[in-house]
Amino acid sequence: MGVLWSCLSRLECARCGRELPADRPAGLCPDCHGPLLARYDLEAAGRVFRPSDVAGRPTSLWRYREVLPVQGPAGVVTLGEGWTPLVRLDRLRERWGLAELFVKDEARLPAGTVKARGAAVGVSRARELGLRRLVIGVAGNAGAAWAAYCARAGLALTVFMPADAPPGRAAEARLAGAKVILVDGSPDNAASQAQRAGAESESFDVSAFREPYQLEGVKTLGYELYEQLDWRPPDAIVCPVGNGAVIAGIWKALNEMETMGWIPGRKPRLIGVQAAGCAPVVRAFEEGADECRPWADGETVARELRVTDPPAGFLALQAIRETGGWAVAVTDSEVRDAMRLTASTEGLVLCPEGAAAAAALDRLAQAGVVLPGNRVVILNTGTGFVDPPGPTEALPVVRPVQIPPL
Amino acid sequence: MGVLWSCLSRLECARCGRELPADRPAGLCPDCHGPLLARYDLEAAGRVFRPSDVAGRPTSLWRYREVLPVQGPAGVVTLGEGWTPLVRLDRLRERWGLAELFVKDEARLPAGTVKARGAAVGVSRARELGLRRLVIGVAGNAGAAWAAYCARAGLALTVFMPADAPPGRAAEARLAGAKVILVDGSPDNAASQAQRAGAESESFDVSAFREPYQLEGVKTLGYELYEQLDWRPPDAIVCPVGNGAVIAGIWKALNEMETMGWIPGRKPRLIGVQAAGCAPVVRAFEEGADECRPWADGETVARELRVTDPPAGFLALQAIRETGGWAVAVTDSEVRDAMRLTASTEGLVLCPEGAAAAAALDRLAQAGVVLPGNRVVILNTGTGFVDPPGPTEALPVVRPVQIPPL
Repeated sequence: MGVLWSCLSRLECARCGRELPADRPAGLCPDCHGPLLARYDLEAAGRVFRPSDVAGRPTSLWRYREVLPVQGPAGVVTLGEGWTPLVRLDRLRERWGLAELFVKDEARLPAGTVKARGAAVGVSRARELGLRRLVIGVAGNAGAAWAAYCARAGLALTVFMPADAPPGRAAEARLAGAKVILVDGSPDNAASQAQRAGAESESFDVSAFREPYQLEGVKTLGYELYEQLDWRPPDAIVCPVGNGAVIAGIWKALNEMETMGWIPGRKPRLIGVQAAGCAPVVRAFEEGADECRPWADGETVARELRVTDPPAGFLALQAIRETGGWAVAVTDSEVRDAMRLTASTEGLVLCPEGAAAAAALDRLAQAGVVLPGNRVVILNTGTGFVDPPGPTEALPVVRPVQIPPL
Repeated sequence: MGVLWSCLSRLECARCGRELPADRPAGLCPDCHGPLLARYDLEAAGRVFRPSDVAGRPTSLWRYREVLPVQGPAGVVTLGEGWTPLVRLDRLRERWGLAELFVKDEARLPAGTVKARGAAVGVSRARELGLRRLVIGVAGNAGAAWAAYCARAGLALTVFMPADAPPGRAAEARLAGAKVILVDGSPDNAASQAQRAGAESESFDVSAFREPYQLEGVKTLGYELYEQLDWRPPDAIVCPVGNGAVIAGIWKALNEMETMGWIPGRKPRLIGVQAAGCAPVVRAFEEGADECRPWADGETVARELRVTDPPAGFLALQAIRETGGWAVAVTDSEVRDAMRLTASTEGLVLCPEGAAAAAALDRLAQAGVVLPGNRVVILNTGTGFVDPPGPTEALPVVRPVQIPPL
């Protein structure tokens, strides 16, 4: 063979460990209905794929192609995603005595959301495997992202989305040609509807953790983060947790990089942040449980976090425990304060979910989870202006003065 | 001296050619009130600054530091701006028989707008020159961008913005600590108010073409575009024209790169696109005039293009004529059609201004300005979801079906 492209070798159930071939479409584990994960021949990859090889490649997530599932360049559906900046917060850092504080700013992705990583890889792989019609249940952002990539790939998409998701997200998905169906209730309800629609039709359900490949796109966050830090591990990575893909994806990247000998065994603490109004992972963490119980009536301004029964809750809990991390919930009021603080001191307008992660720093410092001198990365998972931050009572609005034109 | 940083040498009036020192704050030309341009020692730069030097630098607009005005790394105020992707439109390309068609997607910048380039460099240089309080008149996007960078730099900012600008933009600027004053009428009225406020206070007016440095940020678009095309010139670059900074900035970059021997003398056609409801540059181009006459009552869905008396209209006209380019106006209906077409065939949600540029391709092909086999770049100047594209009568909304949760 010529140049090594992907080292994808098989699928593996994250719950029972059953292995499946990766050369045909696969949803959940046929035995236990657990989520499937993509596995690679990391020994082979580790022999030929080194950080120094990656350095000169194009600045997109496809630079990590050996650990992505797509089988060759013809399979790549791309809108130029990945390599989002790590923005230094040198003023805010001082508040907690940190040595370095960064925001990994996923607002700079297509559709303004980290979901674009999953959609890019998920749609590419779906097309490569011959799928033509997809269905997905989302909180909001993923609908816009998947619609964009499906349009580009020529795949048909139906999006189930909560009726109270930001209206712009539904409008964008429709603009890109997707069929959008609004659903009463939470993102979990939307996902249930998508599952039913997938089972009753020729459409394949690509909701989070119902197919294995989107997580591969999300995990590139972890690779990028390390590469952008010149492979010096941070002490903590603070992740908002909705369906759990971001924290599970980063954890998967850390394990892969360790196996390939790219990074040392010591891993940063992975910290999961949820909203006080919808915190199933935090509750399970505090109870010492391995699984989440569904949360009743999730409600928070951080709408992407309103996942009451996160499909990867158990993976998020593993990631947190195995890295010596923490799980913490913040209130909507803390989210709003963090948005204001970060915007006014650092010029960065975070999305509510990213602001939740930033808001957690006070609690993490109090609990001694984050220590003075630490190097910390916060994930901002999307743009703050999908759902414009005002004029609402939530924000400190200076009433504008109407003055006549000259 | 050690490593060469900036080759900034002086300022020069774009109208009368008067030269001024670049080491203190400067607004308009003291003689003729024309806009000042930053000039560099390009001979010196050309000897030591080569495309191959740039290749390995960080992927931000600061990679072109020798032709930027900031005097050293300590002066840089950055949110990780620049190096936005060139996205291929391989399906749409075929509609006009083009060899290659790209969108330079400026939606990926901080605050989701090309204005972030100008704000990054403008704010950095303002702080370096000792300014503490700024005032600016904007169409909308620039308000959010300048507020973000001023917050980061610790500068005070007052933004004058049309009362009918997207409310999210005012909210973001306030969130970042700027004072926002809404003004009846056009962006020109906002700029007039800012000028008066600047004259009557200790604040320095940084509205477009009232200070020389933001254009330096915008011009990096031209450098990036060429570098991302491996220095092979495209045949045409299609630019939406509001205040004229994008097309004037790209033209300045082309001339600088030619002087440094980076690119051949043959330049791509620079094509200016305006909205039929506000087209002072197109009218002047068609009349063979060197200057624009103010447009009465500019109105268009592409709100950033509602500049009735563009301060760099004469520079836009020069750029267009000296490159054998063209100026063309498109209707709001064409803008909406182009948004829908680009989103549904390529997965890219353009802002209305970028959609105006895309919409112009039909007319340009009909007029023979863009030919089959050409390589063309369209500038998408910002995100399409600042001002969410629906639910309005403008978009093909599929009425969502309300279905009960399972």
